[in-house]
Amino acid sequence: MSDYYPRNAWYVAAWSVDLGNEKPFAISILGEPIVIYRTASGRLVALQDRCVHRLARLSLGRCEGERLRCMYHGLLFDAEGKVVEIPGQPQIPASARVRAFPAVERHSWVWVWMGEAAGADEALIPEAVGLDHPDYILGHGQLDYAADGRLINDNLLDFSHLPYVHANSFRPSKDFAQVRPVITALPRGVRFERWVTGKQAAGMLGEKPAADAWVSYDFLAPGVLLMWSGGFPVGTAEACGFTRPDYSQAVSDVNFTSQAVTPLTARTSRYFFSWGPHCKHGDAALRDILMGIAGQAFNEDKVMIEAQQEVIDQIPAPDIMPTTADKGITIFTQVMRRLARDGNAVTASANHGQEAAAGAADSSTGSSVP
Amino acid sequence: MSDYYPRNAWYVAAWSVDLGNEKPFAISILGEPIVIYRTASGRLVALQDRCVHRLARLSLGRCEGERLRCMYHGLLFDAEGKVVEIPGQPQIPASARVRAFPAVERHSWVWVWMGEAAGADEALIPEAVGLDHPDYILGHGQLDYAADGRLINDNLLDFSHLPYVHANSFRPSKDFAQVRPVITALPRGVRFERWVTGKQAAGMLGEKPAADAWVSYDFLAPGVLLMWSGGFPVGTAEACGFTRPDYSQAVSDVNFTSQAVTPLTARTSRYFFSWGPHCKHGDAALRDILMGIAGQAFNEDKVMIEAQQEVIDQIPAPDIMPTTADKGITIFTQVMRRLARDGNAVTASANHGQEAAAGAADSSTGSSVP
Amino acid sequence: MSDYYPRNAWYVAAWSVDLGNEKPFAISILGEPIVIYRTASGRLVALQDRCVHRLARLSLGRCEGERLRCMYHGLLFDAEGKVVEIPGQPQIPASARVRAFPAVERHSWVWVWMGEAAGADEALIPEAVGLDHPDYILGHGQLDYAADGRLINDNLLDFSHLPYVHANSFRPSKDFAQVRPVITALPRGVRFERWVTGKQAAGMLGEKPAADAWVSYDFLAPGVLLMWSGGFPVGTAEACGFTRPDYSQAVSDVNFTSQAVTPLTARTSRYFFSWGPHCKHGDAALRDILMGIAGQAFNEDKVMIEAQQEVIDQIPAPDIMPTTADKGITIFTQVMRRLARDGNAVTASANHGQEAAAGAADSSTGSSVP
Repeated sequence: MSDYYPRNAWYVAAWSVDLGNEKPFAISILGEPIVIYRTASGRLVALQDRCVHRLARLSLGRCEGERLRCMYHGLLFDAEGKVVEIPGQPQIPASARVRAFPAVERHSWVWVWMGEAAGADEALIPEAVGLDHPDYILGHGQLDYAADGRLINDNLLDFSHLPYVHANSFRPSKDFAQVRPVITALPRGVRFERWVTGKQAAGMLGEKPAADAWVSYDFLAPGVLLMWSGGFPVGTAEACGFTRPDYSQAVSDVNFTSQAVTPLTARTSRYFFSWGPHCKHGDAALRDILMGIAGQAFNEDKVMIEAQQEVIDQIPAPDIMPTTADKGITIFTQVMRRLARDGNAVTASANHGQEAAAGAADSSTGSSVP
Repeated sequence: MSDYYPRNAWYVAAWSVDLGNEKPFAISILGEPIVIYRTASGRLVALQDRCVHRLARLSLGRCEGERLRCMYHGLLFDAEGKVVEIPGQPQIPASARVRAFPAVERHSWVWVWMGEAAGADEALIPEAVGLDHPDYILGHGQLDYAADGRLINDNLLDFSHLPYVHANSFRPSKDFAQVRPVITALPRGVRFERWVTGKQAAGMLGEKPAADAWVSYDFLAPGVLLMWSGGFPVGTAEACGFTRPDYSQAVSDVNFTSQAVTPLTARTSRYFFSWGPHCKHGDAALRDILMGIAGQAFNEDKVMIEAQQEVIDQIPAPDIMPTTADKGITIFTQVMRRLARDGNAVTASANHGQEAAAGAADSSTGSSVP
Repeated sequence: MSDYYPRNAWYVAAWSVDLGNEKPFAISILGEPIVIYRTASGRLVALQDRCVHRLARLSLGRCEGERLRCMYHGLLFDAEGKVVEIPGQPQIPASARVRAFPAVERHSWVWVWMGEAAGADEALIPEAVGLDHPDYILGHGQLDYAADGRLINDNLLDFSHLPYVHANSFRPSKDFAQVRPVITALPRGVRFERWVTGKQAAGMLGEKPAADAWVSYDFLAPGVLLMWSGGFPVGTAEACGFTRPDYSQAVSDVNFTSQAVTPLTARTSRYFFSWGPHCKHGDAALRDILMGIAGQAFNEDKVMIEAQQEVIDQIPAPDIMPTTADKGITIFTQVMRRLARDGNAVTASANHGQEAAAGAADSSTGSSVP
């Protein structure tokens, strides 16, 4: 894996609903095979997915209460990764253990901390909106990419691609790419804020009454996007000086999306996403429409990004030329590099993107749920 | 790519008929991703297939008149590869350009010059017979190989494989491989000439009246075969001392084939071919028969050559043992190495295979269209 | 290939029944492409599968009596690998030859000796039970693995995996993995012996009268398993002090299996197997039942081992932790390394696993056919 990714971060490994009880689940994160299971008592466990004995996959194993048995030669592991039984051998070496990764379920996602366990502060988990949030009606999905996850992060950090890649799905206004959003550095990410006056935020839902649309998202390490959109009466943007509005004044089209990019290996990634309206601004039917559009759009990204990866892999020393649209990418890459460098030195309380957002004195940050 | 291939050469990139107007087309030549498009005005353009910004494929882009827009973040390129628009950014760096490759359409093929533009002399384009040639009724096709194009060149430079690989398709006479053709070095290739007396040139069309068959082809850098065949009255070969006949005296079976091998990457190639009779010696029905036989034969080559590539890749230091049948391969390899070495020093006027063919004083060279 | 595999060994290349007369057959052994054919007179020939000329596959060639013709340019090879004809070229270089490998058919298998021909002692061929053995009714099959053959060897050298991998196929008793077999080093392998008292050897055939089951197998370089199982009256195990019984006293469930693991390349292998009852203890119907269970079981192994290979390939420096169940693997690995090291110094008479089995004074070794 490249030096882009910090180990001291929570990575999304699965939708909680896709993890059955006592059903081991295999994934690679940062190139490392990991088995995840929920124990009989409901505890979430994440271990290296290789038996200490002969490297068989524990994900082919059998849950036994709180424990996981390797189904090659029967070694039994506890939830800390320690071998507690070797069939036919009374002595168990003290070194017989696999690494356990801190893992929690939060906001409908399974999160795994890839760094040292001591640094695994749950307060660092981005405040995604779970599928069970009472105010939102969300669909969810996922998509695998044959590409470095960093290319997906870069994509999500620069929405100037919308009028080109998504001309037929999100259908933004023609001048969308001309106007740069307001971009603010966060301790663990970047915030994007944008007013689109006098029209809907994105034309994807057809002709509707004019509104000033506000779209704001945080993109947080290691690759989590939390976006809130809402329509306001025409004139609101100007009235508030094109700064953050009072969310309670939104009158239309309020919706939320949580997205997460997880690097499986150096050239494969998994992309998790939810989308849906606020319950006062839509229903399950609108959710399905939004999810349909998002599905189309994310496949458009996939075509573009996988082709981009092919080109990168074909060229000995690929070079890029930054544009002014890259500001968000540049800031975020610095954040990632710093986190990767700092390792455990980073403490949670001082670095939580949501709470400590620079210049956001009120609690209604763009990415937390209004 | 190996040092076998010269950059100073015209490579066939496509059949002209397969290139739609304002439809970007992606290909790799010598391992380099290239996008080709025909502009609104009909001009042919070939550019590096990677945006200067973030290496997105321009071949996923959109033609706009004479220009090509990258459909990732909207950068617009002119036909010389220069960026002329960056959405949302007034300043465009002077260095913002991709390489443009000289490209022309000729003889129904799209040709791309991979070397420095200054050396791109169109007179170096081999005189293939286009699909629109008034005297010939040609079919055309193409075939992709999972093999180094050099192995296909080697195949076409030694027809002693015909009685073995093509025993069931071209069905040459049993003693075909026993008699070596006359082989002559050309400035940019090799000429092969052969009389097959008292029988048809190849037995592929069944029993027919006896004839002295003349088959002659030029194989020209970087991998273009131009072959003319014709039947003459029995005795012609002896009467002209087994040298080149007067083409106007041909009485049967006159046909022509143009073939081109293009190295896509180090281990993949594309093979373009046409075949068909002179309009006085056949019709569309005969063309279809010839194309059917050629299709069978080229798939026989593909099986043999892809298996050969597998073996080569499995052996640490593969060695070969030349035979006397390799004479054409040896000469051609020297030509290729010289061209690869000389680079732009080669000038067109002094090196055109067709015109300057050593020892061919008359204008009826075997490969030009009689 | 790793240094695990000796070249001085007989490798199984095919089932004899799958090798047609004068039908060249391609296989790689130890990463080396080999063509095998049975001549018109029935002689078995194994040659390097690459023409001396341009590395075409001889396995795409044509048998001509005792010889094999390369169907690329027609070179003809005799059964010793010497080129005896080059079409169109009278002189044949003395060096024009490919390596011939000693090859024999024995016990229904085609065996190829990968070392120097001088060391190819047929007495070193393990005494597998052929499909034509009068006392046994055997089925046969084969299975390809995307894994290093060594992982399959390791699997077969430690049956403590049976209660886990094969809980649903071979269905051994629950305490099977608790009791270690008696393990004895052989000059070219390892012998495993085990009594399972008061129950059938494996519960795979359902409820049956109680018996003392004896299971014994030799695992011989480079990867050949020969296993004999039989049921004895309850009490036999104790009566003979849990040592090898008098095979003639077996009363039930006598069956035999020969298995062979052949490393094709560093990451692919072929697994050959037969199984069936002694003719006094079963019929073709029982053979089919046994083969059905074996087929299920071997696919269970394949899933586990291919996943194991994936993990090994994903980890920079995979480490393993031996257990007491690894004794057989450890001994066998030492045998393989010694053979790989000794090369031709190993002589057949002093090293034949079957005859010189340490401590087996009688001729009824576990693996030879009783």
